[in-house]
Amino acid sequence: MDPSPTEVLAQALVDVGSRLHRAGLLPATSGNLSVRRDPDCVLLTASGLDKGRLRPSDLLGFTPEGEALGRMLPRPRDGAALRPSAETALHLQLYRRDPSVGAVLHVHGEAATVLSMVAEGDTLVLTGFELLKALRGVTHHDAQVALPILDNDQDMEALAAQVEARLDAAPGVPGYLLRGHGLYTWGADLAEAERHVEALDFLFRCKLRLRQEGWR
Amino acid sequence: MDPSPTEVLAQALVDVGSRLHRAGLLPATSGNLSVRRDPDCVLLTASGLDKGRLRPSDLLGFTPEGEALGRMLPRPRDGAALRPSAETALHLQLYRRDPSVGAVLHVHGEAATVLSMVAEGDTLVLTGFELLKALRGVTHHDAQVALPILDNDQDMEALAAQVEARLDAAPGVPGYLLRGHGLYTWGADLAEAERHVEALDFLFRCKLRLRQEGWR
Amino acid sequence: MDPSPTEVLAQALVDVGSRLHRAGLLPATSGNLSVRRDPDCVLLTASGLDKGRLRPSDLLGFTPEGEALGRMLPRPRDGAALRPSAETALHLQLYRRDPSVGAVLHVHGEAATVLSMVAEGDTLVLTGFELLKALRGVTHHDAQVALPILDNDQDMEALAAQVEARLDAAPGVPGYLLRGHGLYTWGADLAEAERHVEALDFLFRCKLRLRQEGWR
Amino acid sequence: MDPSPTEVLAQALVDVGSRLHRAGLLPATSGNLSVRRDPDCVLLTASGLDKGRLRPSDLLGFTPEGEALGRMLPRPRDGAALRPSAETALHLQLYRRDPSVGAVLHVHGEAATVLSMVAEGDTLVLTGFELLKALRGVTHHDAQVALPILDNDQDMEALAAQVEARLDAAPGVPGYLLRGHGLYTWGADLAEAERHVEALDFLFRCKLRLRQEGWR
Repeated sequence: MDPSPTEVLAQALVDVGSRLHRAGLLPATSGNLSVRRDPDCVLLTASGLDKGRLRPSDLLGFTPEGEALGRMLPRPRDGAALRPSAETALHLQLYRRDPSVGAVLHVHGEAATVLSMVAEGDTLVLTGFELLKALRGVTHHDAQVALPILDNDQDMEALAAQVEARLDAAPGVPGYLLRGHGLYTWGADLAEAERHVEALDFLFRCKLRLRQEGWR
Repeated sequence: MDPSPTEVLAQALVDVGSRLHRAGLLPATSGNLSVRRDPDCVLLTASGLDKGRLRPSDLLGFTPEGEALGRMLPRPRDGAALRPSAETALHLQLYRRDPSVGAVLHVHGEAATVLSMVAEGDTLVLTGFELLKALRGVTHHDAQVALPILDNDQDMEALAAQVEARLDAAPGVPGYLLRGHGLYTWGADLAEAERHVEALDFLFRCKLRLRQEGWR
Repeated sequence: MDPSPTEVLAQALVDVGSRLHRAGLLPATSGNLSVRRDPDCVLLTASGLDKGRLRPSDLLGFTPEGEALGRMLPRPRDGAALRPSAETALHLQLYRRDPSVGAVLHVHGEAATVLSMVAEGDTLVLTGFELLKALRGVTHHDAQVALPILDNDQDMEALAAQVEARLDAAPGVPGYLLRGHGLYTWGADLAEAERHVEALDFLFRCKLRLRQEGWR
Repeated sequence: MDPSPTEVLAQALVDVGSRLHRAGLLPATSGNLSVRRDPDCVLLTASGLDKGRLRPSDLLGFTPEGEALGRMLPRPRDGAALRPSAETALHLQLYRRDPSVGAVLHVHGEAATVLSMVAEGDTLVLTGFELLKALRGVTHHDAQVALPILDNDQDMEALAAQVEARLDAAPGVPGYLLRGHGLYTWGADLAEAERHVEALDFLFRCKLRLRQEGWR
């Protein structure tokens, strides 16, 4: 029997998690990953799981408006309850804001964490790199991509409101940083969102090395 | 025939060793790993083994009080004798101190080694990182986690006494550093202890990078 | 049935892509890889593909003079159109210049990107490393290998003209750097070109570390 | 049919090569690896091979006194000639000097290369690290291990004479560095030599990081 669309997407998300964990971008049980199945249903990793060993049944469904749809696939191997991630609201916000967003990846890379703490001001400006062209809509290495940096906050309602304001002020930006916390990025589908993760992590590492050479 | 509880735990420990070795946290034959099978029996890697190629039969049993129980599983492929690790006492001490400790992992990461040597004073304070929440009992990124740093010592009795005093003075701390040597961390089970290793190694690497940016 | 020469070469290129992606030298969908099948046909990766998951059918054929020959192998799994890479001209130029060039690899390593931005002047001089001997024609660690560094440009015609002039002035050089962009290197066959990538990436990393020690 | 002792040793050397290549210690076709089969026969990798894809038949035999014994195993897949490595003399010298040496590994790590260039004087002193105890004969972290550093030289006879003098003056040392070139280390068997490689590479990386913190 062919796998259902939910099974196909869930497996694709598991594969992304496995690759990003192997790349060191999801240490311990950090980060969360989501994909939109249809306009009214987002699949999102549950809280506290090792993203290097996800199973398709480890996802919870939500409407972009925040209604919990529960488990999206039967859990074959054990009956452990899945708790929604505390950062569910930050994912759903992005799907609500923009109907073209098909996937959201939140990762905890070392370079993103360090840069977000040492960067002066509240944006990280990336320019002069060919790899900027891996970001949606960027066609020239001299483009200036200014990622918002926000102070971390355990109050998700307050944090989401801050994010909303910053994204309203920066249309088209492909991601944002939470200080000492990590990167949120997204795309039209999982492939684009994963490309954004790889490109931004590379750019953050370059930026950090350039700082050691005295570049600001 | 179903594997015995000892076989299941031993295989789980072998898998942890393989992952941590691949992550570069157990260079050469360094480090040792243990897991509690029941209140009176701890399984601990024998001395001098490559942790990337452990076998379930490479474990020795001990009571938390220090009585040697010998090999816990038959050794199928060769008859080489297993010697107890010199650091057995440091593992058993942790199981004795706290009945909720189910696993202890001692690793030799590069960042832990370097930080333990350059850190001023006798604690390493970690604060401001979202990933602190991967540590048991931490719920806010602004928590201050102060890991004890102890001078290394080849006299295990003297070292264990120092550890005892430092841990008495720092209840709830999830690990400690030995200067120029590495990290001891633990958890309720292997999964929690491994999560602590991944989280602390990530935090040590961030901390070291932040020092290069002039942060102390 | 034995694979055709095209299939053998295409698979070899896929394998090179997989290894270089794993080494972090082809982040996101960056880079492009090509190999000469015969004097009049070069196989080149199409635009925008993840080089870690290439398929033999992801290659387009070109004559060194720039005529498009289309797909070189049937595409079994899907019918997606392949677009030629914007940097096709930079590959073909190298095959035209030198009939002994059998493969060209363009990679985006972190060290190459950073070094190309901070290096003073318009060449990167490598000397004193035994690994220089992995470069074609170098027989002594005291050789001076001066790689041209060119400013990046989205106008491929203009960029190719700059490259032509710089290579005319530096006969025998095994590669060049585009600022903020990456490395072009080549060889008599894929094995030599891949050896050049590995050697140059190693040398770039050493050079960057030496800069941190105050070496220029 | 059981594999012959030569086949067993050759396969073990291939496996070591694969692991060290994966660890980035044998970039391009650098490095060479050898193992003693019996008092009068050393198996040594031929020149110019990718150590990540060695085959057991890629080894040449030599007496410790330098007599070439030719291929030690039939070459099944192709008939390409094997050339002896230019550094054969440096390997054989170590087997001649000490009958207890069973394996010699020469690797090109980034940290070894950089440290050998920036280190003041002609020794690299390692002390204060627990991992020193992974080196043969070291029982305390406060031991001082002083590795000779020699200037690189393409004249193998001259270089071997320098090595001879330096090793005569430093009995028991487990390895030496060639400036801008890499590490030679050895052991009673392949396992001990590989342990020395892993331990020394770790110590070199720590040492280099400590230099960035102002430690000399």
